[in-house]
Amino acid sequence: MKIERVQAFSDGVFAILITILVLELKLPHYEEGHLLEAIAKQWPILLAYIVSYAYIGILWLFHHDLFNTIKRTTIQLNILNLISLFIVTLLNFSTVLVSESMLSKNTDDMVVAFCLYDGLAFFISFSYLLLYAYLSENETLLQEGTTYYYTKKALKYPLISMSIYLLAFITTFFYVYLGASLLLLGIIFHGYAYYKTAQTHRLK
Amino acid sequence: MKIERVQAFSDGVFAILITILVLELKLPHYEEGHLLEAIAKQWPILLAYIVSYAYIGILWLFHHDLFNTIKRTTIQLNILNLISLFIVTLLNFSTVLVSESMLSKNTDDMVVAFCLYDGLAFFISFSYLLLYAYLSENETLLQEGTTYYYTKKALKYPLISMSIYLLAFITTFFYVYLGASLLLLGIIFHGYAYYKTAQTHRLK
Amino acid sequence: MKIERVQAFSDGVFAILITILVLELKLPHYEEGHLLEAIAKQWPILLAYIVSYAYIGILWLFHHDLFNTIKRTTIQLNILNLISLFIVTLLNFSTVLVSESMLSKNTDDMVVAFCLYDGLAFFISFSYLLLYAYLSENETLLQEGTTYYYTKKALKYPLISMSIYLLAFITTFFYVYLGASLLLLGIIFHGYAYYKTAQTHRLK
Amino acid sequence: MKIERVQAFSDGVFAILITILVLELKLPHYEEGHLLEAIAKQWPILLAYIVSYAYIGILWLFHHDLFNTIKRTTIQLNILNLISLFIVTLLNFSTVLVSESMLSKNTDDMVVAFCLYDGLAFFISFSYLLLYAYLSENETLLQEGTTYYYTKKALKYPLISMSIYLLAFITTFFYVYLGASLLLLGIIFHGYAYYKTAQTHRLK
Repeated sequence: MKIERVQAFSDGVFAILITILVLELKLPHYEEGHLLEAIAKQWPILLAYIVSYAYIGILWLFHHDLFNTIKRTTIQLNILNLISLFIVTLLNFSTVLVSESMLSKNTDDMVVAFCLYDGLAFFISFSYLLLYAYLSENETLLQEGTTYYYTKKALKYPLISMSIYLLAFITTFFYVYLGASLLLLGIIFHGYAYYKTAQTHRLK
Repeated sequence: MKIERVQAFSDGVFAILITILVLELKLPHYEEGHLLEAIAKQWPILLAYIVSYAYIGILWLFHHDLFNTIKRTTIQLNILNLISLFIVTLLNFSTVLVSESMLSKNTDDMVVAFCLYDGLAFFISFSYLLLYAYLSENETLLQEGTTYYYTKKALKYPLISMSIYLLAFITTFFYVYLGASLLLLGIIFHGYAYYKTAQTHRLK
Repeated sequence: MKIERVQAFSDGVFAILITILVLELKLPHYEEGHLLEAIAKQWPILLAYIVSYAYIGILWLFHHDLFNTIKRTTIQLNILNLISLFIVTLLNFSTVLVSESMLSKNTDDMVVAFCLYDGLAFFISFSYLLLYAYLSENETLLQEGTTYYYTKKALKYPLISMSIYLLAFITTFFYVYLGASLLLLGIIFHGYAYYKTAQTHRLK
Repeated sequence: MKIERVQAFSDGVFAILITILVLELKLPHYEEGHLLEAIAKQWPILLAYIVSYAYIGILWLFHHDLFNTIKRTTIQLNILNLISLFIVTLLNFSTVLVSESMLSKNTDDMVVAFCLYDGLAFFISFSYLLLYAYLSENETLLQEGTTYYYTKKALKYPLISMSIYLLAFITTFFYVYLGASLLLLGIIFHGYAYYKTAQTHRLK
């Protein structure tokens, strides 16, 4: 299979996912003349939407740069990629849970919703760790000039991300807002990791 | 018509279909503070989602490899492809029926839902059988190096798949869970068939 | 603007539209144990879905062949194309109206729903007439070997289609089922026109 | 990262967004036999749909021509582009608010809905201003023959658009229909600006 097709399919999934997130921004039930208050009360939905949009955007950038280093694909790589995309598609559902539980302000429900989001983020990073590890062991799949060193060094970032998301998962049980902050930190770190990876890659 | 356009359109349909499946993962109605139980009760929806995601993923891989062997397309091939994609789009509705009937645990409804899924799976494999048969008889449409032999041998897999899905259909009337297991087996076989076909294709 | 981008964008709209049609196939409200009857009652929705899927499929094939004859695009052509796609996107809403009114079997509502569908089909064909006419007068936009003659002759088909849809519109007021049959005939003629156009194009 | 990938991803988002707008055209609740009145009452939804479709269509044309002048992309450009697309995705929600508030005819709600739309339009133009400014300062990213002059001159249009949308925002508080008309004027100016930019670009 040509690598271009895998990229096009993955791009399609990312583009659709990032766009259908917006379908969750529904018109709230409101009394006539009180639309503003009704929208204002929905700030957690907007916040969750912004964070998930940014997160999926960063994942797309990562996916892109990674697959640009690949020359040809294998069945194993296709399956790893489909599994990675699968977990990413679950972010949509998880975003809804987070925003709804923040609306109701019930701590128990918020713990459930944030832990699920932490778990998905953990396994997304884990799927990238597997992708990097697989590529490190199959250098013949890589483009010329995208060296073993590059993919090896990249292992560092998913490991750090996974640690942050694991910490967020555990912390959420005790202090839900601290756990949520750690999740946000993890996503910001993701953006930073992309920035550093993209720079390192360019320098060579 | 250029084959690349047919591939791009089909890729689009597969990418959209596999992504909108996730829209069925809706926030359950729940009492405040009982989100976890509410989600836990929805395991059949998650299970049906995973299976359908895997199934559509495998179908996409199959479709891809098949169309990579084609040099140019014809009206007949376009129509066969549109019919095949049509049946695949119905999997979304069928997945909802299966998960809802498993939630209600009503045996009669489960029989209906699983039989519909079996039927769709049967006709999807049948549409691939027609595609293979048509290509076998129109070798001039094929790329150099993707031989008649390859498409001929490939006929075996849709025939086996169709037999499994037919068996699942009949069994479902008597033992619904055994029928469901056979359906799952059929989808796993589909993955195995893809693996074997991809390997055979690569060897030549 | 490169013609490839306009094709890719249009392909995207067609692929999304044909796939989200399936989202209207919703699980009916049903009493436990009566899923089969509930689905069986929904046959008008399935029928309308099949017809709209076939119709959009044919429109995509037409759009494809037409844009394959174009070398470069203009602002006017882009606007005509966006207007044409706009009317096509309305088919989704119209399909829902038709299937719902057929479920309720209220003649007045069926007249409204079918007339709207007829109207959209009429204006879709009209937009293709405009596209053909514009291209006939701007031969420099066409690829070598796709002659003026080809685009000229093609004017015949949208004109016939428009006549059938107009007739269907008028007939629907008096005999709704006859009007519906004429609409179906129009869509079948559309498929036939594609077949003839594709053949003529290939011969040259 | 290759610029083609950024274009393909952005095209995907535009195509999906323009198509899912149609999902808001829902079948109204109606008494049997009164479908026509029910649809007729929904004219604000259809109007809002037409305007948003035209607006997103123009934004896509703009985005296209802009990215055709770019040779390679940077992290900063990717982030600007993702932010710009993010605001565009919010148009879907805003369109629903506008059409619903026009249905209820409550002035307070209409002010809220139109001001939100004005605000989004303002920030979309602002994001294009940032894109133009960034490209003006990074000429090495541009294709040969797409000069500094071109991107410099283009700064004029987003500035005028932003002024119109700001004026619409303020006016809406006092005369909501005048504000709405200014918004419409802004979108029409957008179309005009695209026409002029495309012409200027072609002349060189």
